[in-house]
Amino acid sequence: MVSTSGPPTVETIATRAGVSTASVSRVLNGHGARPETVRRVERAAAELGYVPNAVARSLQGGRSRQLTVAVRDLRDPGHVAMVRAVQAVARAHGYRLVLHSTDTAADTAHAVADELDVLRGLADGTSDGLVLCPVHVTPEHVEALRTAAQPVVVLGAFPDGVEPPADGVRDDPAAGAELAVRHLVRTGRRRVAFLDGPAGTAPGRDRHRGYRAALAARGLTPDPALVAHADTTVEAGTRALHRLLDGPAGGGGRTGEGHGGGVDAVLCADDRLALGATHALHARGLRVPADVAVAGMGDSPLAEAGWPPLTSVDLGAAERARIAAEMLLARVAERDAGTARTPARTATVAPRLAVRASSAPPARPPGVAT
Amino acid sequence: MVSTSGPPTVETIATRAGVSTASVSRVLNGHGARPETVRRVERAAAELGYVPNAVARSLQGGRSRQLTVAVRDLRDPGHVAMVRAVQAVARAHGYRLVLHSTDTAADTAHAVADELDVLRGLADGTSDGLVLCPVHVTPEHVEALRTAAQPVVVLGAFPDGVEPPADGVRDDPAAGAELAVRHLVRTGRRRVAFLDGPAGTAPGRDRHRGYRAALAARGLTPDPALVAHADTTVEAGTRALHRLLDGPAGGGGRTGEGHGGGVDAVLCADDRLALGATHALHARGLRVPADVAVAGMGDSPLAEAGWPPLTSVDLGAAERARIAAEMLLARVAERDAGTARTPARTATVAPRLAVRASSAPPARPPGVAT
Repeated sequence: MVSTSGPPTVETIATRAGVSTASVSRVLNGHGARPETVRRVERAAAELGYVPNAVARSLQGGRSRQLTVAVRDLRDPGHVAMVRAVQAVARAHGYRLVLHSTDTAADTAHAVADELDVLRGLADGTSDGLVLCPVHVTPEHVEALRTAAQPVVVLGAFPDGVEPPADGVRDDPAAGAELAVRHLVRTGRRRVAFLDGPAGTAPGRDRHRGYRAALAARGLTPDPALVAHADTTVEAGTRALHRLLDGPAGGGGRTGEGHGGGVDAVLCADDRLALGATHALHARGLRVPADVAVAGMGDSPLAEAGWPPLTSVDLGAAERARIAAEMLLARVAERDAGTARTPARTATVAPRLAVRASSAPPARPPGVAT
Repeated sequence: MVSTSGPPTVETIATRAGVSTASVSRVLNGHGARPETVRRVERAAAELGYVPNAVARSLQGGRSRQLTVAVRDLRDPGHVAMVRAVQAVARAHGYRLVLHSTDTAADTAHAVADELDVLRGLADGTSDGLVLCPVHVTPEHVEALRTAAQPVVVLGAFPDGVEPPADGVRDDPAAGAELAVRHLVRTGRRRVAFLDGPAGTAPGRDRHRGYRAALAARGLTPDPALVAHADTTVEAGTRALHRLLDGPAGGGGRTGEGHGGGVDAVLCADDRLALGATHALHARGLRVPADVAVAGMGDSPLAEAGWPPLTSVDLGAAERARIAAEMLLARVAERDAGTARTPARTATVAPRLAVRASSAPPARPPGVAT
């Protein structure tokens, strides 16, 4: 609350310092004064808890000392990890962080429009740069990125064949899915289902590529009946796995008592889907991992919360966001220095597999080639 | 990235409008010009995608059109829910949201210092107000709140006997714990353990009060051996429940085969602790809820992710944050209007119990008095 005394003003500082308000203004605005006056004003200002007005400083310097981070949905633990990582870098460099989350997971058209608003809004000067994690990079994004008023680093992949319109840091969902399926196959699974997010996304295509590549490397033929799509929630994951196990893939090819009707492992595109898959398996009386192994993607805090704790592919959300924030600050520094802009840079963070109890320990020592 | 064409400038707008740069400046700064000039400048500015410089507007108007939300730890799903709710209100009213999360759950002294920095930093004029969710309200907080340069609404309770130094919205952990324990007792449990967060916190004292009150209402005597403390993580919850069940409370008073050695229910102060408790019970071969029922607090997304899905006390995190943001905007409006400041207001959001599979269905129909 505003107290009756209030924050220090030019007047209160002048009274305390025993100088004129004009002298206080000159000193605080950096316009100089006699050394003794400068000392007295600075001491009085410090004693009164004076904090220079950042808006005024910003107008003088042309910098807001703010960065913006825009993510789609704070209900996604990966997006929260990104925000935390960007904030850590921003704080370490004395920047405030403006948060913008679209929070419209279901409505992609609205999310794209909102992201474009954030990009175009950079012209208002309230932010020195933006880390943007878009739903996907549309041609409109590319155009808005090329004309953005402030530096932007994109967390995500640019469309194939497009010259990168900005710096970017991406994950590698294909390598991540391949890593998980190789682990599942190496530990003895042969009928690996794939529970993906909504159909038709670019990361989804990448994950499918990795899934198929890992199976092909072991001479296994992908079975389309083993692939399903679901919205990225626990409940949708549960329903989708029940449907899959009730269908032809689950009914045929039974490999033994207590097994999931021929399915002996499930790779899920997100930890929330994987939690939903374990719920469906528990409800059917199937043991995880003895009957059906489960792996998620994202390696969010949800993975350790699951029962059994989930094996999950760490796609490096926090690491990508940290790199993006540092790239952004490098661009801000480049612009402040007035040097020529260097070409856009892109980086890819490789996935790691965190093996937990939801997938069996390897049938052979991990070092043995499969 | 900054394109070679760049955002519109006074020069490009003047060229397009066919007027002088001085006329453009006058119109954009709201200083007036001939109606025809105003029309031409505004049309050209719109066509070129001009966005008024918010820093300049802020300096003129004395308002930043930004609100700040400060929470302790984005790893806490309740704090994420708060940030989402504050953002929704801020956006609906045309405010940007500055995010500050201390992210030092373990180090309370550091967290307090950081929160005081945020309070004092309000003097820099970059924010029109603050929603602050402190670790707990210290005397230093009270002093900083009384002298804050901008309106603040606190998410939390003020110390007893202190006149509220700011608006506040709090939860009711005592009523929440009582609600959960009444439910556990009503469904037939008699040996209800309480797994609390770190010892010595004000909300912890409230939760204990509610726990004891619910037991006393049924003539049950609280057993100190049934109470344990743990850091608020899944792993710490697992370890703490193992210790409790290995101790005198778990060993004595066995009430039947397969039971947790005399413990037939566990109330946990947080969903993460409750997930950890279910892990410990699963690892010991105990059935949830048939042998031991589990309830968490917070009703975060983790509750539905658990197996079995967790009964949890909803302490209204999102609702409290929404109310706090609206209180804050009312204060900003009050100040802008120059009316006398009304006294500090405080509100309490009552808890709700979300019953899920981790606690058995009631032994009697819910309407029957117990």
